[in-house]
Amino acid sequence: MQYNQCPVKTNTANLLRSPADACGRLSPRYSFRMENTTAGKADARFMAEAVALARNAAERGEGGPFGAVVVRGGEIVARGWNRVTGTNDPTAHAEVTAIREACRVLGRFHLEDCELYSSCEPCPMCLAAAHWARLKAVWYAATREDAASAGFDDAAMYAEAERPPERRTVPCRHLPEDAESAAAAMRGWAADPRKKPY
Amino acid sequence: MQYNQCPVKTNTANLLRSPADACGRLSPRYSFRMENTTAGKADARFMAEAVALARNAAERGEGGPFGAVVVRGGEIVARGWNRVTGTNDPTAHAEVTAIREACRVLGRFHLEDCELYSSCEPCPMCLAAAHWARLKAVWYAATREDAASAGFDDAAMYAEAERPPERRTVPCRHLPEDAESAAAAMRGWAADPRKKPY
Repeated sequence: MQYNQCPVKTNTANLLRSPADACGRLSPRYSFRMENTTAGKADARFMAEAVALARNAAERGEGGPFGAVVVRGGEIVARGWNRVTGTNDPTAHAEVTAIREACRVLGRFHLEDCELYSSCEPCPMCLAAAHWARLKAVWYAATREDAASAGFDDAAMYAEAERPPERRTVPCRHLPEDAESAAAAMRGWAADPRKKPY
Repeated sequence: MQYNQCPVKTNTANLLRSPADACGRLSPRYSFRMENTTAGKADARFMAEAVALARNAAERGEGGPFGAVVVRGGEIVARGWNRVTGTNDPTAHAEVTAIREACRVLGRFHLEDCELYSSCEPCPMCLAAAHWARLKAVWYAATREDAASAGFDDAAMYAEAERPPERRTVPCRHLPEDAESAAAAMRGWAADPRKKPY
């Protein structure tokens, strides 16, 4: 099977030297530097494995029918599948599970030299997890529309982040009385030379 | 300290009986049923604990200066703090860590009778995790703007989900060749009477 080459490019090396990185979270600068490094080309074997994991996940009874693999240098370094119900962890989606396992195997918290293959388009949690892990690229097979037609629907969650916090499904409310003390903890960390940026 | 009462209401009981739930993911129906059950009133003690955890997290050197607690029936059932660098887990944000711990303690994957207090506005990953966990409400102290002024910035990540997949910071690409086999795995699961909805 021949995939089209991905035309989107990211300069991971520069990203990891960005000032935002030294502060621990993504900056707009990180978000808009996509032009310099190749995101690579998909390999059909890896997606086949992700889909096989999705199929097996349905059999295992540990969660939903979703699978994912993390690939580095042409090798699968970690496999993941949905284990929400089996492990009582609502964050144990296939993508998150694969990312956690890859980090465990590689002994680090950034996967800037890795790509993720997922049997389905990541939900917003998994998309953000891919960002925090600094993955080079994400490849997916079924779309959120495919998922919707099978009775799944992440579309509402994609809309959530755009809504005012207090109007979300899980209402989020600001407590301004505590904002200053919480912000002070951040400033203290940012100024601490012993901190480990992430 | 006196907080304002949260006016947003959610009918958790109905949500858990919704058809979407039986399929395992949130539906638009879940998203827009906010009118029937109270999301409760914030308690200053719990936010004070979340902020104290944020302060301690900066000292512990396991990750960033963020803390969170999960509260059920007026009691803290789980505490979390950012442990990204200490555990080599890019998903180990304070909120995710607290949610995982609460689920472990309570032995279930839904926290519909719990509220989350976080020292900072959740990033998109943690916001979506709160949804998957079916939390009743999320309370936060520092805002994303506070975080930005201390050198952190999640704002770009909030914009990510709205961008076309191939234009994201971590480029996401659809592989339509594999969509049908991945979607078939979903349909198989949805039709399986042994499945455990989540």
